[in-house]
Amino acid sequence: MASNDFVLGLKCRVCGKLYPKAANFFCPDDSGPLEVAYDYDRIQPNVSRAKFTSRPRNMWRYRELLPLDGEPTVGPQVGGTPLIRADRLADALGVERLWIKNDAVNFPTLSFKDRVVSVALSKARELGMRMVGCASTGNLANSVAALSASAGLETVILVPADLERVKIYGTALYGAKVVKVSGTYDQVNRLCTQIVMKYGWGFVNVNLRPFYAEGSKTVGFEIAEDLGWRFPQHVVCPMAGGALIGKIHKGFTELSRLGLVDAPVTTKMYGAQASGCNPISDCVKSNRERHKPIKTPNTICKSLAIGDPADGYFAAKLIRDSGGWAEDVTDAEIVESMLLLAKTEGVFAETAGGTTLAVAKKLIESGRIPRNEEIVICITGNGLKTQDAVFDAIDEPTIIKPTLVDFEALTGATEAVAEPALA
Amino acid sequence: MASNDFVLGLKCRVCGKLYPKAANFFCPDDSGPLEVAYDYDRIQPNVSRAKFTSRPRNMWRYRELLPLDGEPTVGPQVGGTPLIRADRLADALGVERLWIKNDAVNFPTLSFKDRVVSVALSKARELGMRMVGCASTGNLANSVAALSASAGLETVILVPADLERVKIYGTALYGAKVVKVSGTYDQVNRLCTQIVMKYGWGFVNVNLRPFYAEGSKTVGFEIAEDLGWRFPQHVVCPMAGGALIGKIHKGFTELSRLGLVDAPVTTKMYGAQASGCNPISDCVKSNRERHKPIKTPNTICKSLAIGDPADGYFAAKLIRDSGGWAEDVTDAEIVESMLLLAKTEGVFAETAGGTTLAVAKKLIESGRIPRNEEIVICITGNGLKTQDAVFDAIDEPTIIKPTLVDFEALTGATEAVAEPALA
Repeated sequence: MASNDFVLGLKCRVCGKLYPKAANFFCPDDSGPLEVAYDYDRIQPNVSRAKFTSRPRNMWRYRELLPLDGEPTVGPQVGGTPLIRADRLADALGVERLWIKNDAVNFPTLSFKDRVVSVALSKARELGMRMVGCASTGNLANSVAALSASAGLETVILVPADLERVKIYGTALYGAKVVKVSGTYDQVNRLCTQIVMKYGWGFVNVNLRPFYAEGSKTVGFEIAEDLGWRFPQHVVCPMAGGALIGKIHKGFTELSRLGLVDAPVTTKMYGAQASGCNPISDCVKSNRERHKPIKTPNTICKSLAIGDPADGYFAAKLIRDSGGWAEDVTDAEIVESMLLLAKTEGVFAETAGGTTLAVAKKLIESGRIPRNEEIVICITGNGLKTQDAVFDAIDEPTIIKPTLVDFEALTGATEAVAEPALA
Repeated sequence: MASNDFVLGLKCRVCGKLYPKAANFFCPDDSGPLEVAYDYDRIQPNVSRAKFTSRPRNMWRYRELLPLDGEPTVGPQVGGTPLIRADRLADALGVERLWIKNDAVNFPTLSFKDRVVSVALSKARELGMRMVGCASTGNLANSVAALSASAGLETVILVPADLERVKIYGTALYGAKVVKVSGTYDQVNRLCTQIVMKYGWGFVNVNLRPFYAEGSKTVGFEIAEDLGWRFPQHVVCPMAGGALIGKIHKGFTELSRLGLVDAPVTTKMYGAQASGCNPISDCVKSNRERHKPIKTPNTICKSLAIGDPADGYFAAKLIRDSGGWAEDVTDAEIVESMLLLAKTEGVFAETAGGTTLAVAKKLIESGRIPRNEEIVICITGNGLKTQDAVFDAIDEPTIIKPTLVDFEALTGATEAVAEPALA
């Protein structure tokens, strides 16, 4: 059965009014953002743990809870990334039970954005769109370019001109038209909205945003399924536009609502930002209802550098309502945590991952997250995309000649370090 | 049941003599390399398609055919990468049925090496080793460093000094001791053999090689399973040391031997190298029994730049026996194919992937691979690791101011390109 049967429409997150399922993205009455609304009563008899797990391990095993009319036609193999039991990192942080949700190995472009983009572009095709695009801080650009290339869609991608070289070239290589814009992400985003209003192109995080954002719920579905159909006590999540944290929680809520997890959602949600661009964490920490936009973001963590986040209000509200908290960390703390994650768990995360781990560490040390409760840290992108941020902190390896004598001189190896079997 | 029950020992690939299951890697009689030998009669009643598919989607679902005594303790979530139906690339190449096996998104370090390393390091722990390492052209270094970090093993890694910066720093960041050696890979490899002979450390591709190499069979298992438990007619595979191509074929042979695929193995195997380091393809093409070592490799495809490949003889023999062929391609052809793969399928492969696709293209154009038969191309590593090779071939995107007027001036967009719904 196609999942379209279960979508009621797009609902205004401010006034609750329902609109048709189309490329609409804001409520004409109050400019509130729209969100996909489902008929859970009709979904319930059509889903079960057994049905989900019998399908291939990717995000589409939860397709009844995603807003497509038919089968996915873009990115049918996205998701299904590992949830890693991180005992060595847990020891380093002094906590008992810690997991890493590792979207740094997501197919095809190594970030959680592949989840949202595959939903948005599959929907764009359902809507008959020929031209797609996005405003991006990098990962989204990679993902839209790769997935639209695989689908043969025409693509235009707008990025801030100061973005990392690897993210710009790593987008252009897929054949997308890449436009560098001299300005902040927020300026790029406003330009994209103008383009969408004039041309009607399918910009995944503008007019396709309601569909797009639903893809992030699958991070929550996978965490719960991999924990044995239960919820963790604490989830730490990076925040850029602020949508991901809310969608993970929405995913949990849906599993609970449908009886797939036999418990209410009591998970506390924690948001992570860089101190150089911290509108949401500042909003939470200073107990304001609405965030103050950051005009000139200044951090190595460019993928989170959105000064005026679209979902900032909702993210801050969710964090408070769930009993969680938000924090931000310096660039030095970000790099330190990237190295800590690599050295303890063998996971190379991008700067956003370093931010998330550093915030988790800070929240544990401050007592906000108890050391004896279960924690999931969301790693959303791969370190190879922001390699310069961390490589500068690593010592240059020494060069030797290819002889055993030189090797021993360098390493100080002597017979004493031979394995016992040979000693 | 632990899989150790099924390993008979290590068998010399030259004389066939059987040795105990230990960190042995060559036959004292004739210096032949050793290979893990299994008791397939005893494996048969213990495996089935249903048993494999009921397990989590990673390489360990085939654990009865891997040489560990117990459960894997290093890399328990490696493998299970997508097999992609590549219709757009097939159109570009003028063939009917084409698949990409995409190890560019392998967990944790984005190459097929994670498969072999997780076997080798799990075995190292079973053997009680405390110190591990490798000689590497890059991907192996990343993988050994990451997986040994996750297991808390001490690690030393030797690489040629001219390796790409990203592979060197992307190894050191995991806390491994990285030693740059001024010399070719073959010189690095010989030094590692000296270290192993003196200290008994667990070098994954030296004294752990028989166990290590078995991990590559899982590429073959996954291809066959994802095709619905059958074999493709043609597999194109990159060759560095020459082990992978043989192990994919061994994987097929085992599935056939055990009745898991209900057909003999008639797959033709094709090997891909760069023209700047082509000992095995040269050996095949010139119809020699043994390859001539290449003293000074010269190609952008450093991950395949092994001048004197350990399994060169066996790779060439297998290619001939299977009815396949080998080819090599220029650096320009490698880059061109990296871009072709990105633009048609949204897959960013490293130079080795460009090499493999370029060779496939050459073999199709020359008629060696028929256009109407089913082809699988093995992509073994991620393009982010060799990004400079391809970024130099991409035009610098233009910078504009954040206004619609500037956007339209750059792109030539006018009302005529609006989506039909808005027109």
